[in-house]
Amino acid sequence: MQAIQIEAFGNPAEVLKVVEIPDVGAPAEGEVVIALEASPINMSDLLMISGRYGYRPKLPSVMGTEGVGRVIAVGAGVKHLKQGDRTLVPYPVPAWAERIKTDANRLRPLPNGDVHQLAMLGINPPTAYLMLTDFVTLPSGSWVIQNSANSGVGRALIPIAKSLGLKTVNVVRRDDVVAELKAIGGDVVLVDGPDLAKRVAAETGKAPIALAVDGVGDTSTSNLLGCLTEKGVHVFYSTISGKPSVVPATHFIFRDISMRGFWLANWFNIAKADQITEMYDRLTPLVASGAIHAPVAGTYRFADLAEAVAVASKNRGKALFTVG
Amino acid sequence: MQAIQIEAFGNPAEVLKVVEIPDVGAPAEGEVVIALEASPINMSDLLMISGRYGYRPKLPSVMGTEGVGRVIAVGAGVKHLKQGDRTLVPYPVPAWAERIKTDANRLRPLPNGDVHQLAMLGINPPTAYLMLTDFVTLPSGSWVIQNSANSGVGRALIPIAKSLGLKTVNVVRRDDVVAELKAIGGDVVLVDGPDLAKRVAAETGKAPIALAVDGVGDTSTSNLLGCLTEKGVHVFYSTISGKPSVVPATHFIFRDISMRGFWLANWFNIAKADQITEMYDRLTPLVASGAIHAPVAGTYRFADLAEAVAVASKNRGKALFTVG
Repeated sequence: MQAIQIEAFGNPAEVLKVVEIPDVGAPAEGEVVIALEASPINMSDLLMISGRYGYRPKLPSVMGTEGVGRVIAVGAGVKHLKQGDRTLVPYPVPAWAERIKTDANRLRPLPNGDVHQLAMLGINPPTAYLMLTDFVTLPSGSWVIQNSANSGVGRALIPIAKSLGLKTVNVVRRDDVVAELKAIGGDVVLVDGPDLAKRVAAETGKAPIALAVDGVGDTSTSNLLGCLTEKGVHVFYSTISGKPSVVPATHFIFRDISMRGFWLANWFNIAKADQITEMYDRLTPLVASGAIHAPVAGTYRFADLAEAVAVASKNRGKALFTVG
Repeated sequence: MQAIQIEAFGNPAEVLKVVEIPDVGAPAEGEVVIALEASPINMSDLLMISGRYGYRPKLPSVMGTEGVGRVIAVGAGVKHLKQGDRTLVPYPVPAWAERIKTDANRLRPLPNGDVHQLAMLGINPPTAYLMLTDFVTLPSGSWVIQNSANSGVGRALIPIAKSLGLKTVNVVRRDDVVAELKAIGGDVVLVDGPDLAKRVAAETGKAPIALAVDGVGDTSTSNLLGCLTEKGVHVFYSTISGKPSVVPATHFIFRDISMRGFWLANWFNIAKADQITEMYDRLTPLVASGAIHAPVAGTYRFADLAEAVAVASKNRGKALFTVG
């Protein structure tokens, strides 16, 4: 069967190869075989392929960290899934292969919905959800602030926050996405800048903001820090600027701000199976209903790898592999 | 009586004035009157006077945040202090006055010792001690790292860490203080630089370091972050470089580092009287014995205010006011 693999870390356009690998064979007890339907190329995939991610898989390795497919074979003892069910490729099983054999324990049948959107349920919505719930106890009606609001995580965070009764300040780098993010439910949408705290205070009526979610770094970090209330928590999940953050120590010393990071891979390592299924049970309806929606730049066959990677690298809408 | 006061925030050399203010009068029940003997000019005093500190006192205000003096009058009900006892001026009672009337509750008689060193017991040793104990549980034998190791807090931290069974990596900006900091007990002393983590690993045998104490900011922050073990905590207490910190988000995302701040003024606001006296009971013998020692650049009468401030601003040894 076909898969997309690397034998060395490096420029994704050079090191990713479509290869023929042995088929997965029949499922053992407790396993299923999934025929991949769709899988996105995430920024974290590109980082991992280039060797600049938090860990490096053993090489050669099939790549891809999320996706969706149909169950085509069910092992003994698996009662909760049947042939034809659509299900996620569970993290961290490599997704970019025609067929994937995996333990069925954490898998659930997915409801009807846009297959491309369901293929992007695995990573960005959980990242947004867990940052909203795992660092600060936010009573209903609280405000949170995020930059990178037009990213995959950022767009997922808006409807997830709404489902938790939270209001969002959404910080973007380009004026031309403001209207769109308001349309998908962003309560306040502002273009980043050094006077951010002042504009946020004006838009929120000086409401205290106890959580800042940062996917950018650079000066955007200090802009967010200035918006946090005393004892607020600043959480990094990405650093799309590629630059270190600018961080005035006074926020920490005089206002008891704290700074943390979130990495979904680490969460999966420590989470119990129940926590994982409960989280997806909560997020799946939001994706299936269209409330969480990530713009798609294009869909590609494995053979169109080069074009898919070029589109994904532009980071303006998702490039997805589709199979079948 | 004489005191040093400001009527407006600004350049300490311009706004500090020696003034004649009414004497304090007799102590009420539970109070004592202290005749000041010595009080240092701290960097935090200069920041507060310039209006750049975490809070601004109501003006006009006598300044000075720590000092030591003799009890000269004892109010009714005060059994644990008598005339002639030496005691601290309790935070946040302004210290730069000939006589200070204050609640006696938190005060203890001090043992014999260098009066100038005891005058500096109030702020820097507690800051060092509480950063070592309040953020991370450090088993005996653990390593901690600090920059600004030649500062008042930094020099206090070395013997306090030793008293807690901890080993210290001490980062400095100048090669000419390395030998001196080793002589006062610094286990490892290194000049700061981008390759700090590598040199620290070599000196400590790659021991995990779970706590970094940062009084500098700028690139020194990223140098310290690189030395921390997974889940380590980075604590700011000052930012002597005057520059925002350089902070790569990857430490937070992939290694679960967290960043905090410590402000003694805030600790005093929330600490119970027992906690405060217990802390000083622990630190007082270290100062009285000379284990904690801050270099003195000079001692000055209130009338020599201008010279004292000029020396204090150079930040090479402490300038102290002495009275009597």
